[in-house]
Amino acid sequence: MKALVFQGPGRIAWQDAPDPGIEDPADAIVRVDVVTICGTDLHILKGDVQEVTPGRVLGHEAVGTVVETGGDVRTVRPGDRVLISCISACGRCRFCRESRYGQCRGGGGWILGHTIDGTQAEYVRVPFADLSVHPLPDSIDGSDAVLLADIFPTSYEVGVLNGAVHPADTVVVVGAGPIGLAAIATAGFYSPGRIVAVDLAESRLAAARALGADAIVNAGEDPEQLVADLTEGLGADVVMEAVGVPEAFEMCTRMVRPGGRVANIGVHGKPAALHLEDLWIRDVTGLVDTSSTPMLLRMMAAGRLPSAELITHRFELGEMEEAYEVFGRAAETGAIKVALGGPRHTVVSLPDAPAA
Amino acid sequence: MKALVFQGPGRIAWQDAPDPGIEDPADAIVRVDVVTICGTDLHILKGDVQEVTPGRVLGHEAVGTVVETGGDVRTVRPGDRVLISCISACGRCRFCRESRYGQCRGGGGWILGHTIDGTQAEYVRVPFADLSVHPLPDSIDGSDAVLLADIFPTSYEVGVLNGAVHPADTVVVVGAGPIGLAAIATAGFYSPGRIVAVDLAESRLAAARALGADAIVNAGEDPEQLVADLTEGLGADVVMEAVGVPEAFEMCTRMVRPGGRVANIGVHGKPAALHLEDLWIRDVTGLVDTSSTPMLLRMMAAGRLPSAELITHRFELGEMEEAYEVFGRAAETGAIKVALGGPRHTVVSLPDAPAA
Repeated sequence: MKALVFQGPGRIAWQDAPDPGIEDPADAIVRVDVVTICGTDLHILKGDVQEVTPGRVLGHEAVGTVVETGGDVRTVRPGDRVLISCISACGRCRFCRESRYGQCRGGGGWILGHTIDGTQAEYVRVPFADLSVHPLPDSIDGSDAVLLADIFPTSYEVGVLNGAVHPADTVVVVGAGPIGLAAIATAGFYSPGRIVAVDLAESRLAAARALGADAIVNAGEDPEQLVADLTEGLGADVVMEAVGVPEAFEMCTRMVRPGGRVANIGVHGKPAALHLEDLWIRDVTGLVDTSSTPMLLRMMAAGRLPSAELITHRFELGEMEEAYEVFGRAAETGAIKVALGGPRHTVVSLPDAPAA
Repeated sequence: MKALVFQGPGRIAWQDAPDPGIEDPADAIVRVDVVTICGTDLHILKGDVQEVTPGRVLGHEAVGTVVETGGDVRTVRPGDRVLISCISACGRCRFCRESRYGQCRGGGGWILGHTIDGTQAEYVRVPFADLSVHPLPDSIDGSDAVLLADIFPTSYEVGVLNGAVHPADTVVVVGAGPIGLAAIATAGFYSPGRIVAVDLAESRLAAARALGADAIVNAGEDPEQLVADLTEGLGADVVMEAVGVPEAFEMCTRMVRPGGRVANIGVHGKPAALHLEDLWIRDVTGLVDTSSTPMLLRMMAAGRLPSAELITHRFELGEMEEAYEVFGRAAETGAIKVALGGPRHTVVSLPDAPAA
């Protein structure tokens, strides 16, 4: 058969390759009818993905027709038109049982075009076929369905579900490539109040508008100001990063409202700065609400919370400066928590009003 | 009255201060019976918290006795013994209605000892008393209850709930100060399989053991190796940062298992590096599982997913190299998604097996 073979960084070729065959009873061999190229394939081509070695057939998104199945395959048979998922799943491991197929420990996960030969070929071997391909109804065209191999589930699960889009939310999607556009389309399932798309390319912003964005803004202008203006200065409820560069991620964390959610979908090549020093007080990374205090009071009353163990030093209320001194030098004093007042505190009679 | 007054960076004094009085009908005046000092107070003392200006009475954790209430207060009355929460809540704004009191837009939030005078005093004015103090049952000692003003709800909400501790989980708590110790105690509510405490101080590790840690390890040894050994190399289900330094946060992200949760409780003074380039494939920041594919297929069959709009360029299967070229230069070509095969693809008859 012919296949797109990785030759090493910067080099690929459409060339002869061995026909795949059944290697395991759970395998299916699928003739590729429609296939696409992912941004991740471009990363592989650059040499960014070390696991991909020369000789590997690339590709992890396709629609095809089953031509052969192993003896254990029950859900598809030769002649069935199927979607090939970017994620294969053994179905038996801890992670598969939790529907976390991407982390399959039984030999699945993202393997096609990564650690085994992929879909950019005339034929492909798909392991664990029962859980790794989906039969297609006649009503769905193969060119449409190929978008379900990766970009739609990725945008929906990593962007819309992780970002927890709710009705009336202001949703900002930074990056209007295939992933960002699919995020805009699937965010719409939850009836957000407004979707704002950010990109540098006017053509992609036009596509974003066509797919459901209510507002578009060129990244070269001032997206942060626009989002502030649209939200009375509060920020967006959900911000999705669909670019994969640190600057975009950090901009997302500045555009989110207090208590809002940032979902990172972009694939990054280097770390971003997580500004914990700013994000905590806005409850993006976490700030207490004390909404649990009534429950904790009941747990304490039931004797199910430790307390005395945490208070290592006790002072009179008037010994505040000494207490600060002891607490501030905790490494030397061994202080965990200090308490002022209480058992050693002089009991005063209850006045009707503050002491004059 | 006497109060602990911030004089500017590095300077505090227990000195005379004006008696507080009712300023708003929702206020209560509380005589302070037990009060403590928070790590955040030490940050304020260093001058790290710009909103705190000289003359401010510090403190946001206390237990006391109500001495006066404004005309709108319904839940407490003079003589009631109360816990003063570190978070005040108007109860009326969008965030309060969602129990996100920490982000109250109606004048509450973290205000005591921050933007208004606090609890390290003989008396304190507590705004929005109905939602900002909790009456204490006689069975709870004030010295115990003071721990419910901040450290228990903070550790529980930001650590245990954000980290989503589940039965059987391996939970690692980095930092065994008051917050880390309270996280250990409240993580126990959800029956984790094992709690591992990490700290530099042996005395704090001993406290961690007393409060429920199953394993302790000095941060100067090799906590990452211990966690790997305990989890067959997988990593911890939940890792909580309770230190507040970038190195600790970054260690937490290395100790978590694929698909696990990192909860940051520590208050940081500078950014940490978020290694998105390593974390995505382990699904710490988000990787697709394709668990949504069956639903997305049904949405597509129902005509509720766009598709044709996303495919901008079509090729024959054999034109793979040209397709890579067009997709790789998307900025120039305007390519969003390319498809090979499909409508323009030569239909071949279904073979019984891959072409020889």
